[in-house]
Amino acid sequence: MKRGIIIFLISFCWCVTNGQVKSIQEKLGYPKNAKLVIIHADDLGVSHSENSASIAAMEKGSVSSASIMIPCPWLSEIAAYAQSKTRADLGLHITLTSEWKYYKWGPVSPQAKVPGLVNKNGFFYSSVDSVLQYATAAEVEEEIRNQIKRAFQFGIQPTHLDAHMGAVLSRPDFLKAYIKVGHDFRIPVFLPRQLETALKIKLDSMITDKDVIVEHILGASPEDFKRGMKNFYTKEIKNIKPGLTYLIIHTAYDDAEMKAITIDHDAWGAAWRQQDFNFFSSIECAKLLKQNNIYVITWKEIRDKITRQ
Amino acid sequence: MKRGIIIFLISFCWCVTNGQVKSIQEKLGYPKNAKLVIIHADDLGVSHSENSASIAAMEKGSVSSASIMIPCPWLSEIAAYAQSKTRADLGLHITLTSEWKYYKWGPVSPQAKVPGLVNKNGFFYSSVDSVLQYATAAEVEEEIRNQIKRAFQFGIQPTHLDAHMGAVLSRPDFLKAYIKVGHDFRIPVFLPRQLETALKIKLDSMITDKDVIVEHILGASPEDFKRGMKNFYTKEIKNIKPGLTYLIIHTAYDDAEMKAITIDHDAWGAAWRQQDFNFFSSIECAKLLKQNNIYVITWKEIRDKITRQ
Repeated sequence: MKRGIIIFLISFCWCVTNGQVKSIQEKLGYPKNAKLVIIHADDLGVSHSENSASIAAMEKGSVSSASIMIPCPWLSEIAAYAQSKTRADLGLHITLTSEWKYYKWGPVSPQAKVPGLVNKNGFFYSSVDSVLQYATAAEVEEEIRNQIKRAFQFGIQPTHLDAHMGAVLSRPDFLKAYIKVGHDFRIPVFLPRQLETALKIKLDSMITDKDVIVEHILGASPEDFKRGMKNFYTKEIKNIKPGLTYLIIHTAYDDAEMKAITIDHDAWGAAWRQQDFNFFSSIECAKLLKQNNIYVITWKEIRDKITRQ
Repeated sequence: MKRGIIIFLISFCWCVTNGQVKSIQEKLGYPKNAKLVIIHADDLGVSHSENSASIAAMEKGSVSSASIMIPCPWLSEIAAYAQSKTRADLGLHITLTSEWKYYKWGPVSPQAKVPGLVNKNGFFYSSVDSVLQYATAAEVEEEIRNQIKRAFQFGIQPTHLDAHMGAVLSRPDFLKAYIKVGHDFRIPVFLPRQLETALKIKLDSMITDKDVIVEHILGASPEDFKRGMKNFYTKEIKNIKPGLTYLIIHTAYDDAEMKAITIDHDAWGAAWRQQDFNFFSSIECAKLLKQNNIYVITWKEIRDKITRQ
């Protein structure tokens, strides 16, 4: 026992004196003050439109990472892509809600195991508020685990977990379950620093040095959409600071399928997603990132160099 | 007992002598030798493309009836339509298969209750052959009942039942279950006479006078599609004989969603469905039906004047 304590102390002192409390840039092998960004497309699997636009934006554009909604109807299409392109940075967009009017989905767990996650039709609730009202942390944990297992079953090796509509980040006990499952599977989880204010918690007390907290998050608001996406993204990219910035977008085509899915909902609607696709597939965007010395990184780097180190 | 037999004989003789063994035309109130046709669009609920084209073909074209796939992702959209247009002739396209490559669905029953209906991913099998290999009649009956109950839950009052890919018509015990459930809910079921040859059965021994057997079925084959749908349908409509003819079509748009669903599959693919839509929405089709003195009828007439009489 004594020997253990001595080894720990030596190791601790060595780390501090050798500057081993490294920044995320250093951990990932970038210059100490580098500006890192993950350009992240949410909602893959929701539709063919979302899948095909997001694949194009990753392959030909500047999108570096994306996440899949395992319970959604177009899972098989994106799973086939993930299997054929094992280098694609694809995580799981853990899903506890089904927000659109005429196009719905439910949990991958048997309904009897997660009664608090489903409405009378067996679908997820439309809003995070209803999840907060009816779900237990045990049900949330069960569903997260089953979404990961189903991803494996479909040949997907997730690079990370994140949160559709922030549902799994909406309550401390849900968040705890999400972090726990991430640890169990050694998959990094998206953890924005701003959760500390929202949930009145201290993230540092919930995590280990294998986790990464995202300090800066960027995403367009309905007001930014109204004012024009190109201007918004251009301005924000120019302002990116050293450290890790997480840029959340939604890439799909403004076609019949996506218009029908997002009917009666301008925010995050089909036209919005087309504008995200247009900007992040453009040469201007690639140039802008280069001119501003921004490193566009992936979750796989975080998984393999931090979480699984 | 004796009295019962006498009443039966009197009643039987009265029916025959009074011509009470009526033809379907007479039962429905049409001239004795009328040419009746149900122009029926299958596969509603499968996609937005299928829903929107089929609604247009019913409202503006010559399509008189359609049926909904309850387990499919776009159920909520077509259910909302059914609720708003209670006069639309909408039945249930009882579904036991999920045939497309990257776009799948499974049973509405809990999987534990119908293990023989699902593959390792929890989806229906792609082919009727697999259903025949793994499913029991009890599972088929359970799933049919649950699809009907789910239709009611979504505000749909089905005018009839029919069979996606003929799965529920593929074995005598499945057929028996399908007829039984139809009787229980007093919903007419689609029964083509040709089942007698295919299954080596006698339909008349399985039904009552509340059922209707369809003597003539029309539907394009892959060869007809290659030769051109317009010519095929024009020729077939001109040849329609007195009695009830059932014309099976699939109306959708040849758009990105439908192309992706039917990928690697020309037969009953997106272009095929667009051609069905084009013909049965055309003025030429409406004129042709009129010129040939054809009465385009609905399942609702059969339900209300025969099954529920």
